Amino acid sequence: MTDSIATVTDLAERARVASRTLALLTRADKDAALLALADAVDAATDDVVAANAEDLQRGREGGMATGLLDRLTLDADRVAAVADALRDLAGLPDPLGEVVRGSTLANGLQIRQVRVPMGVVGMIYEARPNVTVDAAGLGLKSGNAMILRGGSAAASTNRALVAALRSALTAHGLPADAVQLLEGDHDAVKALMTARGLVDLLIPRGGAGLIQAVVTESTVPVIETGVGNCHVYVDAAADPDKALAIVLNAKTHRPSVCNAAESLLVHRSVAADVLPDVLRDLAGAGVVLHGDDATREHAPDGVVVEPATDEDFDTEYLALEMSVAVVDDLDAALAHVRRHGSGHTEAIVTEDRAAARRWTAEVDAAAVLVNASTRFTDGGEFGFGAEIGISTQKLHARGPMALPELTTTKWVVEGDGQIRG
Amino acid sequence: MTDSIATVTDLAERARVASRTLALLTRADKDAALLALADAVDAATDDVVAANAEDLQRGREGGMATGLLDRLTLDADRVAAVADALRDLAGLPDPLGEVVRGSTLANGLQIRQVRVPMGVVGMIYEARPNVTVDAAGLGLKSGNAMILRGGSAAASTNRALVAALRSALTAHGLPADAVQLLEGDHDAVKALMTARGLVDLLIPRGGAGLIQAVVTESTVPVIETGVGNCHVYVDAAADPDKALAIVLNAKTHRPSVCNAAESLLVHRSVAADVLPDVLRDLAGAGVVLHGDDATREHAPDGVVVEPATDEDFDTEYLALEMSVAVVDDLDAALAHVRRHGSGHTEAIVTEDRAAARRWTAEVDAAAVLVNASTRFTDGGEFGFGAEIGISTQKLHARGPMALPELTTTKWVVEGDGQIRG
Repeated sequence: MTDSIATVTDLAERARVASRTLALLTRADKDAALLALADAVDAATDDVVAANAEDLQRGREGGMATGLLDRLTLDADRVAAVADALRDLAGLPDPLGEVVRGSTLANGLQIRQVRVPMGVVGMIYEARPNVTVDAAGLGLKSGNAMILRGGSAAASTNRALVAALRSALTAHGLPADAVQLLEGDHDAVKALMTARGLVDLLIPRGGAGLIQAVVTESTVPVIETGVGNCHVYVDAAADPDKALAIVLNAKTHRPSVCNAAESLLVHRSVAADVLPDVLRDLAGAGVVLHGDDATREHAPDGVVVEPATDEDFDTEYLALEMSVAVVDDLDAALAHVRRHGSGHTEAIVTEDRAAARRWTAEVDAAAVLVNASTRFTDGGEFGFGAEIGISTQKLHARGPMALPELTTTKWVVEGDGQIRG
Repeated sequence: MTDSIATVTDLAERARVASRTLALLTRADKDAALLALADAVDAATDDVVAANAEDLQRGREGGMATGLLDRLTLDADRVAAVADALRDLAGLPDPLGEVVRGSTLANGLQIRQVRVPMGVVGMIYEARPNVTVDAAGLGLKSGNAMILRGGSAAASTNRALVAALRSALTAHGLPADAVQLLEGDHDAVKALMTARGLVDLLIPRGGAGLIQAVVTESTVPVIETGVGNCHVYVDAAADPDKALAIVLNAKTHRPSVCNAAESLLVHRSVAADVLPDVLRDLAGAGVVLHGDDATREHAPDGVVVEPATDEDFDTEYLALEMSVAVVDDLDAALAHVRRHGSGHTEAIVTEDRAAARRWTAEVDAAAVLVNASTRFTDGGEFGFGAEIGISTQKLHARGPMALPELTTTKWVVEGDGQIRG
């Protein structure tokens, strides 16, 4: 543990020094550097793909699941896409320097609250090497030095990517320590999580287990991302066509991500009208269904709906699987969401203004939707142009996090000799 | 510990229920309630003063220091002031409902980010019973249910105050559980600090030891407040009159608070001009001085400047005591602040635009000041009308925290059947 603390302290101190240079760069400086980084990633394609082949082979030998192997894979096309994402970042506005608030006080002091970088940001994530490049780019654009801890299954790929990024930074006259990779065992991660004062912010990104561990063990401030047990509630006043389209899209468009719907609630008064079609279409799309007794009564012939347990309603399936319940009214739907929701995204389908108004006011979640698919809670969809994760906590950032969420502010106060009387 | 966890769980669940009512109140509802609470505090003056007398007697018997006894004291005048602070809160704008950002997406979805309450907020503070009422009022206005843990030395006073507040809430048709007092030993505090998911935010307010303990032991998100090792740097291009006035004010106006200056840095080229007057006036105001060798050479006859140790430069005296160093240039001043500052408030005195620009850009602190006393970093001075503390962390809030800093946001998305393609 002592060695790990020394390693992290050294990394963090070098990151701090680099961060001081990053904080003073102009937007033009940073955008030029991002384009240079993109070119460097392109130029390193062969090295990266070869390194990735090593990781993939180790993964296959270790019995890694197909889905994880897919996320780990970086072929030439994916490397090109990762480089293009850096170019896209160059096109986004600089979050730094924005004056958030400001005024002139009665005594003539001019005060303004200005967006500045966090400083040193750590990221802990799984074996998804595209995140390595994304995080490096987001860090550079937001003026933060990044300490990256990717899943060890992607170690070779991450090393190749970070080597390419660091040489490009040096060649561009910028500090290589703007992007550093933290290697080592769990002690290294533990040292990062407890490097309070050295690291300004830690962002875990991955499954519920990883996030829970980081949140519990860290003394560094953390932004929790990503667990989404999202509901679609079909209200008594729902348009049945919209309900059908939204439920299908929310569940099946991309079931493996956090903004996919996991649970369907239907008002009892429309259950007989809505459920048969919805259940048939979900089953037709390959969705495994778990329903309460009332739901199962409305299953059309040939559609299997397993009995739902309380655990089903708490489960983020991240797969073609869904829990379904019939509720007595809007109050029961709100109570169900309070009990089982994870505060990510909750949608109502209704044509009733009063029901929509109650839903948006009373549901406590990062995003509350009316007549829209849960899949829209996304930095790209919201027009942010980049996303480092979706925060499900209330402190600092809530919902899709992009460049401004990677900044803090400082108060700049300019006077002419003012003292307090 | 099991009992403490059960107690805190019960408190937090009742707070959650209350918070749902608070979140839906209009500004008019809340302001009327704040005025009713103020009247209730006034009406309870005799009870509160009597309870406070018990606390004071226990304090005196236990050998409590004079300064702490003063902070603990609530006489009739102070009770009236505390009630008036609630009336002032009624005059402030409602932070909730503000649309922070919003747009209509290409697909017609209308998105807006709206300010909403945190939900359940815990406060851990020392034996200062005025904080009990302030926190209750700030919580009500910002729509948050508060769990208050005041120093045990103020237990009787806090009980009397919270009883008055809770009866007034009930009489006003609001849930009494909007304000709850957490009693019990350290296990109770530990249970509060680890009530993740039940408590949305924890704010420690007090000395460095208390804050450090809360920050280290909590799994609930925390906002760190208050340690201020603040510097005044007198630049080569300083106006000597402004320098003298600002240093004196920053050190002596109210030495016991976090925005008081603790350390003075003087550019070598003006040390001979500036230091003799400054040191004489500081000493004349009763300030104990600790200086480096160069500083001591400029001490006028009869002014004692003790040799400063490295520890002196790290010390937040919170008293009439100051460390003083001569620095070679602006870079050396910046390096000194990086090494010894606590990220609270850092002031430069200069008439040189370039030096001022470098100071405000390069110093990493909640507030960076030019030609003004450090004492201005304050919610009241900034025009916020209320302050729950001064954050020295970068996540969520930095600098003086008022009503908006006690809120989070949610994204409200309104559509007409949109699905993702």
